[in-house]
Order: sequence, then C-alpha cells, then structure tokens
Amino acid sequence: MQYNDTIVALATPAGAGAIAVIRLSGEGAISIASAIFVSISGKNIASQKTHTVHLGHIKDGTRVVDEVLATIFKNPNSYTGENVVEFSCHGSNYIQQEIIQLCLRKGCRMATAGEFTLRAFLNGKMDLSQAEAVADLIASESEASHQLAIQQMRGGFSNEIKVLREELLNFASLIELELDFSEEDVEFANREEFQKLITRITNVLKRLIDSFATGNVLKNGIPVAIVGEPNVGKSTLLNSLLNEERAIVSDIAGTTRDTIEDEISIGGIGFRFIDTAGIRETSDTIEGLGIKKTFEKIKDSQVVILMFSAIELKGSKSNLQVEIEKIKNKYPQKPLIVVVNKVDQLSEKETSNLLSLIPNTSSLIPVSAKTGKGVEELKNTLLEFVNTGALRNNETIVTNTRHYDSLLKALEEIQKVQVGIDANLSGDLLAIDIRQALYYFGEITGEITNDDLLGNIFANFCIGK
Amino acid sequence: MQYNDTIVALATPAGAGAIAVIRLSGEGAISIASAIFVSISGKNIASQKTHTVHLGHIKDGTRVVDEVLATIFKNPNSYTGENVVEFSCHGSNYIQQEIIQLCLRKGCRMATAGEFTLRAFLNGKMDLSQAEAVADLIASESEASHQLAIQQMRGGFSNEIKVLREELLNFASLIELELDFSEEDVEFANREEFQKLITRITNVLKRLIDSFATGNVLKNGIPVAIVGEPNVGKSTLLNSLLNEERAIVSDIAGTTRDTIEDEISIGGIGFRFIDTAGIRETSDTIEGLGIKKTFEKIKDSQVVILMFSAIELKGSKSNLQVEIEKIKNKYPQKPLIVVVNKVDQLSEKETSNLLSLIPNTSSLIPVSAKTGKGVEELKNTLLEFVNTGALRNNETIVTNTRHYDSLLKALEEIQKVQVGIDANLSGDLLAIDIRQALYYFGEITGEITNDDLLGNIFANFCIGK
Repeated sequence: MQYNDTIVALATPAGAGAIAVIRLSGEGAISIASAIFVSISGKNIASQKTHTVHLGHIKDGTRVVDEVLATIFKNPNSYTGENVVEFSCHGSNYIQQEIIQLCLRKGCRMATAGEFTLRAFLNGKMDLSQAEAVADLIASESEASHQLAIQQMRGGFSNEIKVLREELLNFASLIELELDFSEEDVEFANREEFQKLITRITNVLKRLIDSFATGNVLKNGIPVAIVGEPNVGKSTLLNSLLNEERAIVSDIAGTTRDTIEDEISIGGIGFRFIDTAGIRETSDTIEGLGIKKTFEKIKDSQVVILMFSAIELKGSKSNLQVEIEKIKNKYPQKPLIVVVNKVDQLSEKETSNLLSLIPNTSSLIPVSAKTGKGVEELKNTLLEFVNTGALRNNETIVTNTRHYDSLLKALEEIQKVQVGIDANLSGDLLAIDIRQALYYFGEITGEITNDDLLGNIFANFCIGK
Repeated sequence: MQYNDTIVALATPAGAGAIAVIRLSGEGAISIASAIFVSISGKNIASQKTHTVHLGHIKDGTRVVDEVLATIFKNPNSYTGENVVEFSCHGSNYIQQEIIQLCLRKGCRMATAGEFTLRAFLNGKMDLSQAEAVADLIASESEASHQLAIQQMRGGFSNEIKVLREELLNFASLIELELDFSEEDVEFANREEFQKLITRITNVLKRLIDSFATGNVLKNGIPVAIVGEPNVGKSTLLNSLLNEERAIVSDIAGTTRDTIEDEISIGGIGFRFIDTAGIRETSDTIEGLGIKKTFEKIKDSQVVILMFSAIELKGSKSNLQVEIEKIKNKYPQKPLIVVVNKVDQLSEKETSNLLSLIPNTSSLIPVSAKTGKGVEELKNTLLEFVNTGALRNNETIVTNTRHYDSLLKALEEIQKVQVGIDANLSGDLLAIDIRQALYYFGEITGEITNDDLLGNIFANFCIGK
C-alpha cells in the first residue's frame, strides 16, 4: 500500500440534498485544493491556518463549477493525521461528480472503502478497535448499539486490553530475561505475582467473552419471531410500536413501514422482527412447507410473539391452546408472548374469558394495535427479556466477532500458561504461551496486524470514511 | 413569520453515510450549540472567531452522543446572514436524529423547506432570483442546467433586470416630478432619451422572453420519444449512451438503468427519454389504446427516435416505411431520427440495402447498441436539434416560469407606454403604466414581494437549504 498519494471521496450519502461534502486527504490535499478553489476574498488557502473555513468558487479553468465552503485541516491535526480539505458544495449529483472528477484530474485518486479511517489508524490517530467502532457508529440504529460503539470509539475496550497486555508483556520480559541467566537459576519474575496476574487476566477475558452474547444482540438487534396469520394485524402492531418510539423529527425518516421484517428501537434496544407464515394446521403441501419455515425462524429468534385476532378467537377458541402447545413442546426454553389483538372489538367479559384460556406459563397481553391499548405492556415485556445490566453499568461489552475470536484464542493461551504454572513448567516453555497470548491481545488493538487483516476490516466501511 | 428564533435541520441527504451535517441558524445558534457541544481542547465555542472549526463531543447531560466537528459562522458572515453553527457528525440515522432532537429540546425549532435560503433573502444576502437559482443548482443534473443555475445564482440575470429597472425608475420619477409642476408645462424627462430607453427595454424583454423556450428545455431536459417494439434494444441503446458520457467516478451512482424513462446528459445537455409502446398495426383493442398513447407522447416530445431491429427488418421491410409515413403524416414538423439497431448482425450489403429504403427526409442511423457502433453519430444528431448558441455565448437565459410570466407582463406594460408615447399621452397617464412595469421588474428580483409569493417559491426547496 502507498500512502503518500492524495485520496478523494464523497463523505455524505449519495443522492441530491441541500449540501454535500467532498473530502481530500494526503500530502497534496491543500495544494490540489488551491489549484481548483478561488477564495472570494482573494486569500490563498495554502497559507491559511488549520481549522478555518473559506468561501469561494470551485473553478475548472475559467468555468465556475460551484460556490463552496472549503475547510482546511493541517497535518497532523485532522481525522486522518494528514492534510485534509473538505469542500461543502451544493448537493446536486452533477456538482458532486464534477468536483470529484476535477480533483482526480488534478492528481487525487478515488479513496477505497474505509481508506480515510485506515490512514487515521496507520498514522496513529486511533487504534484498530477504535477504527472498527467508527464503522459500528455509522451503522448504529438504536441507543444500545450506539452507546456500545461510542464507548469502543472512545477507547474503553482497548484501554482494558492494553493495560492487561502491558502487565503481561512485563512478566514475559522478566521470564525471558531469566532464560539468559538460566545457568544461574535466578527468578526475576515473582511467581506469586505472576499467578495473580494470570488469574486476573483469566477473569477479565472470561467476563469479556461472556459479554459478547449480550453485545452481539445489542449491536445487531434482538431477533423476535412474530407468528400469526396475515389478518391478525402484525404490521399495524409494528407501526404502533414504531410510532410510540418516534419523536418530533419523525417526519425526516417517515413513520410507516410496509414490511414487517424490520428493526424497531424499543426503549433504546433494537428488536429485529421476523415475519412468519403462522403454524395453523393445513392439508396443503405448500403451506406445510410454510409451517416448517416458521419453526426454523422461531429457532433462530430469541423471543417469540404468537399473535391472534380477538374476533377470530371468539369463533374457535381451540386454535389458541393448540398453537401455544405446539411452540412450547418444540422450544420449551424460548420466551413466548401471546398477543391477542383487536380487543377494542371485544366486551370486557369476553376479554376476561379469553384470559382464562391461557396456560399460566405464558405471558398473555390483550392489545389493540389500532388504539394503542396494551402496546406499552408489550414493550415492557419485550424489554424484560433483555439483559441490559451491563449496558447500564457502563461495563465493557464485546460486540465485534473479530475481537471475540481473538479473546477466545487469548484465553486458550492463558489457560495453557496456567497449566504450565501448575505443572511447574520452565520459563522458556511458559514464555512461548505468553507470547502467543500477547499476540492475540495485540490483534485486537492493532499493535499486531497485517495487510489481510486490515483489508478485511476496512472493506466493510463505506467509501468516504 | 417570525425570524428571531433559531432553526435546525439536516443539510445532507437523508440516510446513512460517512458523515452528516446538521445546521443551526438564528440569533441563538451559537449559544444553543455551546449548551450541547464540549470542545476537546476545553475552549468555549461562543468566544471563538467566525469561520473556525472545533473538534468536540455532543453531550446530552453526561451522555456522549457523538464526536463531531462544529463550525462557527458569525452574523452577518454566514449563508443566512445570521449566526450559524454546522455540526459534522457520524452519519448514522440514529445519531442525526439524536442531535436534532437535542437541539429542539434546547430551543431550536425544525426548519421548514427552504427556510435557510429564505432567511438569506430576507437578510439581504441574495435577491429572489438568486435564491431561486440555489434550488435550481441543487436540482441540476446536466452541464447546461447547471451552467444556467450558476449564472443566475451569480446574479447575471438579476443585474440585467436591475439596471433596466433603475433607468426606468429614474424616468418615472422625472415624469412624476413634471406632474407636480403641471401648471407650468415643464418637461424634466427628455422625451427622445425616454423613447430610446423604452426601445432598449422592449428589445431586452423580447430577447429574454424568447430565451425561455431554450432555457426551459435546457433546464428540464429535451423530451425525446423512443418509438419501438420491446425487442428492438431500447434500454441497451440508452445504457450505451449513458456509459459513453460517464467517467471515472461512475461507480458512485451506478451505470446501468433499468428504466427507459430517464434523463441522460449528452454533450452537457439533458435529454429526457420517453418510452412508448410502438405504433405497429394490431387488431387488439388494448394495443390499439397503446398506439393512441404513443402518438400523445410523440406530440409532447421535441424529437422522435423511431427504432427498429435490423434482424427483424430483414424479414419484413415494409413496416419501416409504413411507420415512418405514419409519424410524418401526423407530425410533419417533428424532427424524426430512424435508428436501425443490431447492425452488427447484418452484412455490409444488407446494411446498404436498408439505407436505400429510407425516404430522404429522415435521418437514418444504423447502430449497434451492443458494440457502440453509430452511437456517437446518434449523439451528434440529437445535439443538432438543440439551440445551444445562447448558452455558448454566455447570454442571459430565462429558465424560470415565474420570471417568464413577470417578463411577459412587464413587456405588456412597456408596450402600453410605447402606445402612450406615440399618442402623445400626458405624463400622468404614462406614469401609471411605467409604475406597473416597474412592479413586474421588482417581482423578479424580490424588491417587490409578499408572503404568498415567498411561500410558493420556498415550498419547493428541500428542508436543510
């Protein structure tokens, strides 16, 4: 990889908007910008201070391409640690392309996905887990996933790893030093202290590894299967949940969703609702396949909502118990919420009759998706299934599969070290396992890295970040 | 309308991207920003210079919402002429909404469509036709529409109108002054000079009014009906035209279009291609309706491309002449281009045979959309139908229907003045028509305005601009 060239990319979402931001980074960013930007006040931007903004025109020869604001960031005081110029232009696709093409003609090249952040990492502006958190932050769509990404971006996770790595590195050096004096049988590394450290590291690693189960669902959303026939009001219920959570700015993103398969943030936690075809008995082969698929989706989900229409139940109440039993028998451990919708169309007596039909083992929630009755209770019930304790306590939570893998491998090596200590192994043998554990720690923060690893990580970024 | 409040909106396109920009404008913009932004270096942004950028965190109480850049613009040195703060944040929808909601809670209100530009107009940062050009600029998707918008935004059009208005205003004052001395029969306004001015104004108005025909198609794209059966390769041809015009940055916006009904920029001019069902004779009633619709679309278009497949023609060559005649008979003035596609599958002799079949009155272009043969010739032929002389000469071109209307009305009044001069009308009668003409001039630049007019103009803007 070559890093003394200057890259350019659109940093804002594609498409027309009020403004768009085009970002240049590299040694030549400011000189390339000077070649196409003419300040209104006649100033040369190359001689301006870092972190200043200038109004002017982007010119292609004598032709005015746009009136823009140019912001200057000088090496090392920028996102990438290089010279950076950001043009804030009028947001038409045409103008965006014209300016980018002009930059390319003047010597920039198109940035690859994540290349700005890759350069930030390579220039020491952030460690690898912080760089990964940038992508998570951009992808965050709920309070929980956002909080985890912010925490990681601010270094919460790396710091914990770095401290352990340093202490371990210290002991590794001492033990390796003993090897140099092996004939004299000295012991520089206090074995008691070392045992304490290994115990502490083991505990931290186990806690972090355990946190991944929580972190992963908080980051990706908790999968909830909604089981019910098409007429029970599944999408009305989801829109009702959605609208309760949306506030004044809702008009920005639209408030009604057509699809049931979507993520909705409830109480700051993302829930991924998975639509199923229901499990009603049928003689039709194709529908039989549908039931098989429904059970597969239930298996993959963490909570199941079984949904009925109250009106329909009035006719044949038997379905309700049969379907609950079916799910309970197949997945006895899976949390099940029974939602009876459209209770606004039932009398109070009818509703309480329905309640009496449900086995004690399930939560039954009578709702009216239309009027909003019961929706709050459903939300609270869903939230009960989520372990947010760690999140509330601001504990470090692992959300990244790559980190999880490295932590598992580090734990494995640390456990080998422990076995070695217990067996009174010689220092040279201990040192090998310690070095291996250090390697996996370093992989997380990027102290140990290679092009393949970096390529994999940054390929998942968007271009422009 | 109330303009001492502070407005907030997302200025970049909706959706997730690397970064998003949230813009605040109003007297309280900087103090509201200070309440939620904590600079990394500990500086208070309220005491920072205008046009400076600061790294810090958006905080909701103790909770960190995002790490952002805050850019400060101080009244009157900003887009709106008010205090403006722009937050450049990580581009997740969640973060965008959190920051906007936080601003709302701290005293901002959501901006309405075009409200930033409306404030810029009301604060004298630009005139009305320049403000309208901002919306045109954002919507511009071809070089021509872009050039027209830039020219208008830089005041080219308003300046011409303003100069005429001032000269006319001058004479109006002199003539009205005469009225005060009417008993003394003086003549402050030189009638010969006045006649010269009226002639000049008439000529300019006529030129501007005439330019609208060109300006309107350059701005909105030239409608081209493509007449042909589904199998003749219409979409392949359009993709071939599209790809020739796209350059290195093409991967940003994707290069293949599924629909034929789309605008493609050719040689900097936008062409709107309109797909039709063809006009082949049929006994089917529904297809008969299709032919009727095709003729309606031909009527609305400025150029017609009649497209055949060479392979098909080899079988029955009669269709070609019949269909050309049909269109020629119905719209004898409409430019017609006959495109015979798939000539890569014909021998040279077969191609020249085909050529001999075409009446002299039409352009015949043998193409292969697949190999690109003939595509360049088709582009040149299309461009021949566009009058781009005025554009090349950088003349003022009217593109806005509102301006066109006001110019027509102004001309009408000026012509009344001319009639008055010819009939030796008295000054008091002349003055009425001059005042009315001045009114319409003022409407264009916004010197004369009202809430309805402003409401109509800015409602067509996007929010955030």
